[in-house]
Amino acid sequence: MSPPAVPYDGDDALERLLKRSGSPYDLAGLRGLVTGVEAAPRGEAPEAWMGLVAAQPSEALRAQLRAFRQVVASASPGLVSPPLAERLAALQKELSRRGLGGFIVPRADEHQGEYVAPRAERLYWLTGFNGSAGVAVVLAEQAAIFVDGRYTLQVQEQVDGSHFEPRHVHEQPPEDWIAANLPAGSKLGYDPWLHTPDGLARLRAAAVKASGSLVPVADNPLDAVWPDRPPAPLAPVAAHDLRYAGSDSQSKRQALAAALAVEKLDAAVLTTPDSIAWLLNIRGGDLPRTPVALGLALLHKDGAVELFMDRRKLLPGLDVHLGNAVAVAPPEAFGLALDRLGATGARVRVDPSTAADWIFDRLKAAGARAEQGADPCALPKARKNAVEIAGARAAHRRDGVALTRFLAWLGPAARAGGLGEIAAIERLAEFRREGDLFRDFSFDSISGAGPNGAIVHYRATPASERHLRQGELYLIDSGAQYLDGTTDVTRTVAIGAPTAEMRDRFTRVLKGHIALGRARFPRGTTGSQLDALARTALWQVGLDYDHGTGHGVGSFLSVHEGPQRISKLPNRTALEPGMIVSNEPGYYKTGAYGIRIENLIVVTEAPASGDERPMLAFETLTLAPIDRALVDTSLLTAEEIAWLDAYHARVRSELTPLLDAETAAWLIEATRPLGG
Amino acid sequence: MSPPAVPYDGDDALERLLKRSGSPYDLAGLRGLVTGVEAAPRGEAPEAWMGLVAAQPSEALRAQLRAFRQVVASASPGLVSPPLAERLAALQKELSRRGLGGFIVPRADEHQGEYVAPRAERLYWLTGFNGSAGVAVVLAEQAAIFVDGRYTLQVQEQVDGSHFEPRHVHEQPPEDWIAANLPAGSKLGYDPWLHTPDGLARLRAAAVKASGSLVPVADNPLDAVWPDRPPAPLAPVAAHDLRYAGSDSQSKRQALAAALAVEKLDAAVLTTPDSIAWLLNIRGGDLPRTPVALGLALLHKDGAVELFMDRRKLLPGLDVHLGNAVAVAPPEAFGLALDRLGATGARVRVDPSTAADWIFDRLKAAGARAEQGADPCALPKARKNAVEIAGARAAHRRDGVALTRFLAWLGPAARAGGLGEIAAIERLAEFRREGDLFRDFSFDSISGAGPNGAIVHYRATPASERHLRQGELYLIDSGAQYLDGTTDVTRTVAIGAPTAEMRDRFTRVLKGHIALGRARFPRGTTGSQLDALARTALWQVGLDYDHGTGHGVGSFLSVHEGPQRISKLPNRTALEPGMIVSNEPGYYKTGAYGIRIENLIVVTEAPASGDERPMLAFETLTLAPIDRALVDTSLLTAEEIAWLDAYHARVRSELTPLLDAETAAWLIEATRPLGG
Repeated sequence: MSPPAVPYDGDDALERLLKRSGSPYDLAGLRGLVTGVEAAPRGEAPEAWMGLVAAQPSEALRAQLRAFRQVVASASPGLVSPPLAERLAALQKELSRRGLGGFIVPRADEHQGEYVAPRAERLYWLTGFNGSAGVAVVLAEQAAIFVDGRYTLQVQEQVDGSHFEPRHVHEQPPEDWIAANLPAGSKLGYDPWLHTPDGLARLRAAAVKASGSLVPVADNPLDAVWPDRPPAPLAPVAAHDLRYAGSDSQSKRQALAAALAVEKLDAAVLTTPDSIAWLLNIRGGDLPRTPVALGLALLHKDGAVELFMDRRKLLPGLDVHLGNAVAVAPPEAFGLALDRLGATGARVRVDPSTAADWIFDRLKAAGARAEQGADPCALPKARKNAVEIAGARAAHRRDGVALTRFLAWLGPAARAGGLGEIAAIERLAEFRREGDLFRDFSFDSISGAGPNGAIVHYRATPASERHLRQGELYLIDSGAQYLDGTTDVTRTVAIGAPTAEMRDRFTRVLKGHIALGRARFPRGTTGSQLDALARTALWQVGLDYDHGTGHGVGSFLSVHEGPQRISKLPNRTALEPGMIVSNEPGYYKTGAYGIRIENLIVVTEAPASGDERPMLAFETLTLAPIDRALVDTSLLTAEEIAWLDAYHARVRSELTPLLDAETAAWLIEATRPLGG
Repeated sequence: MSPPAVPYDGDDALERLLKRSGSPYDLAGLRGLVTGVEAAPRGEAPEAWMGLVAAQPSEALRAQLRAFRQVVASASPGLVSPPLAERLAALQKELSRRGLGGFIVPRADEHQGEYVAPRAERLYWLTGFNGSAGVAVVLAEQAAIFVDGRYTLQVQEQVDGSHFEPRHVHEQPPEDWIAANLPAGSKLGYDPWLHTPDGLARLRAAAVKASGSLVPVADNPLDAVWPDRPPAPLAPVAAHDLRYAGSDSQSKRQALAAALAVEKLDAAVLTTPDSIAWLLNIRGGDLPRTPVALGLALLHKDGAVELFMDRRKLLPGLDVHLGNAVAVAPPEAFGLALDRLGATGARVRVDPSTAADWIFDRLKAAGARAEQGADPCALPKARKNAVEIAGARAAHRRDGVALTRFLAWLGPAARAGGLGEIAAIERLAEFRREGDLFRDFSFDSISGAGPNGAIVHYRATPASERHLRQGELYLIDSGAQYLDGTTDVTRTVAIGAPTAEMRDRFTRVLKGHIALGRARFPRGTTGSQLDALARTALWQVGLDYDHGTGHGVGSFLSVHEGPQRISKLPNRTALEPGMIVSNEPGYYKTGAYGIRIENLIVVTEAPASGDERPMLAFETLTLAPIDRALVDTSLLTAEEIAWLDAYHARVRSELTPLLDAETAAWLIEATRPLGG
């Protein structure tokens, strides 16, 4: 329930309230802060930002801050950006003015993550395409946009094909298009903050192939023609409590610093927000569904950290939490800090798969040695400690309660008719919000009825959504951010009676899920090695699915994290105890239905007598029933039936104490052994 | 039976015989040729070289050539090389003379293959270590030798530890040792013919870390202190007949040239002897167990080839076989040919994983662009055509006959007592030699009784060999080169009654073998993805094996070929129809026994109704019974039993028509269904 709206009492009244609350802000400063807050997602705690204005804002101040934000948000600057149809021409004119023959517009920002802030949505601003991956190449006379298989339809709907030639990024890659179309002698520009060295190599080769060259630009020319580009987001940054993090920041920093010293490194550059959040035990809200704060950091070999982050977003008390060994500096100071490293000829670890080309260039120019290597936080962040694993188990119990309540409600609600995909999402969201320590959802739910379930990255909209109909399948993939853990679960349920084919397919997906879930494997095994276990039952009848089987999951962090994964693609990261991954095989029949069964699982040590090797296995974290109506028992082995029955027994015993009587009764039925 | 020895009648008599046979050789030339012949393996056709002397040598000439070779071989040059103990000091003195602080001595030659010619055995000459992989680093005051886990014992037996510190190449890599021990300011030399760019990168970084540098040398300093270094081998090179190759060289060259043109490449450098053999449909005998001729080649975009190879080893008629578009030039002309490419600014494909660093440097210096990419022969060579597959099936029938005769003989022979590992190898070799189109063995057999079977790369010697004893296991891994195909098969048999543990382990290895053998998988799947299928039955009880599950196999070529493989290691090469790989899971109990079951399998298209993807599967090529006495049927599923019974039925039906009555009767018993 949002509080009743109070009208804005005017600037003078607000300034008085600010002063009375001991706020350091005057009105101009507050306007800047609120503009930044508006550039961050609203999330599930849309008033947490008020803590940035004053440590203990009074009720009166809160009401006026709420009203002031309304005023700021609705004070439209008028139409500043040119209409979409004219933006390409504006950029081309700017390129010509700068003597550039072309420019590359990736969807990436400085951090190379899955989500970007509104100010970094350059590809969207330029083309109208708002998918999560893509790149445009703009030349003087022509332009093209490159997207992957998920977005080939969407790009046609959103982008004017007469301006941007749509191409498949793998089958018709940018390199080929550049090699064929960049005029000889031309300079193809790129923003060195938006590309990694790994990503640039092929683009450079393509430009050279066309007898042109690839050149970095000091200022992004697109930003120059985007007058109403939003500011950087300013969501509040809070400490992540030790009782959830399990290890204090100083211990983490000392351990990493010792590893740097062994490698004779002087420092490491950290550019991914989740690494910084993990290392400093802080959480923010600058990006959707991911509790991170945008920023950059340097970890020095003595364990000290320089954090480059806008101070305005640090909640009161954060300085104390960070301690003396963490110095906060404005983002603009980052380049000078690299110069200081260069002045001593420092050896600096930089991750070429995630760090911007700009950083390598600046280090080199300053006289430092950029030593390519993995982000030092990546592996320790992936290996959850005992407190984080206990937190994950607890979070999954609460999440299981929400999902079980939803599933119990779903059947009758669907049978009653008229239940849409969006209404279903909202009902599940309500159940989740009731859970302790709930902070947000971990991604936008995928709620697909019938043929919509076959679209792997489907997002229901009022235009696309369907009702849950009898005789169809319904797939729901969702998750939440709790203070003690991040969840991600998919269940596929039969609405009414399923066909024999649906049951066959579901059971084969289940066989794959079980094969991975009960795998035992020696230390040193990678997810690439295990991936096929989840597919062989489908392969046997000529079926497969076109996505990975498992991704890493953070601890109240990103729902997608590396470096481990379970996928067809080669990966050299061994699965190690404490790593959380998803187990989500599927099957999709275009135009008909989609099936996916997803649990989160954690790698555990699994010694047994007679073992000659140190063996690992998975413990399943997710607790929610798997639809028995879709299981064709005749396709399962005795071991597979035993696994499912044992899983269901565990779901029942762990959740029942937390459920109302009606849901508990439903769960008993839903988890009845297949055997009897 | 070798013919009776005839004494050498003297130089004059031989010169007369040479002239009468129309040989182009005088005695001095012949001496040079024979020295080269002596530097090649004798193989199974030790007189084939006489065809190089004259097209149709008379019986009298053959007898005198035989005697002359004896004379040449026994005319020892006396002790020219310093004794082993003094070689390191000689090399260090030479390094000092050249101003080098150190030198790297790898086991590799210019072709980066598994076998090298005697003249390239530098590591062996310097250290006494004759394993198939290793590297020594020699500094002014100290030296170290680096070997992998297979050779840690052997290196201690063969190498004087007071001269060379023995180290494990993965756990204590050369890079670390160089970084720690190379004096600052020193030049660490390397022979650019013996390293690939891929291999050099880390060595260079290590030298830099020690504040030294890595420098190429124009002439190998070790060769300068090795006075009796053998010449290049001169085994005869013959045409590989179209009825075995299935595709003529011109067609292969045109197809590859067209692919070069698409990539706007002007030429490709070929440095691996099996690629050249495949492309030109030629076979030689310069290396043990592998019918290849050492040489280098350039493939031009018009399909023409320059082959850099000593003309003396080409058998009469080979020029006609090669045709007008293949020019043979002496090996010394290779550098000039690269210079010619450079003069036109050509773009030249070179494989950085197999081509020598020298080639990249020379191309660059000449003005060419070395474009890194895979050897263009590698993939088409791996994808056997229909004729090669038919040949493989035929070769495997003959090989199966030999192995079945051996296995039928083995039980009674072992029971009689006193049968050693070497005698067993020799008996099997005799059976194989009786097969049509037999040319050689494809590697030195591994024949391991009891605990010797647990040594994965065991080679029986008179000192190491054991008798085959009752109650023990016997493992034999062997193969042959037939004109129509290369074989490689391992069987493990119980001598007398096996223990329950042996049967459990054997059955788990068999389950893995069957899981891989009967796998169905979509196009695009790599061997890395399938590897785990062969291991899960072992993993379930905490066991594993420390080698790959499958390697590629050539067609009358190398028994180990890429680019596909089935292994834990990441590999991006998809399995494609026509690729032949081994299927060889195992289990090894140190000090007790070894188990391996190896068949060759070929990838086939395997469509079935209802498939939504193009599916592939394996056809098993190897035909030989698997020891039923070692199978614990209670551990097998019904599908696994059906697979083994069907395999045995096929072995029986294909081999029985080719067997004597006694062996056929034995085979009926050995292939009896498990069910009944």
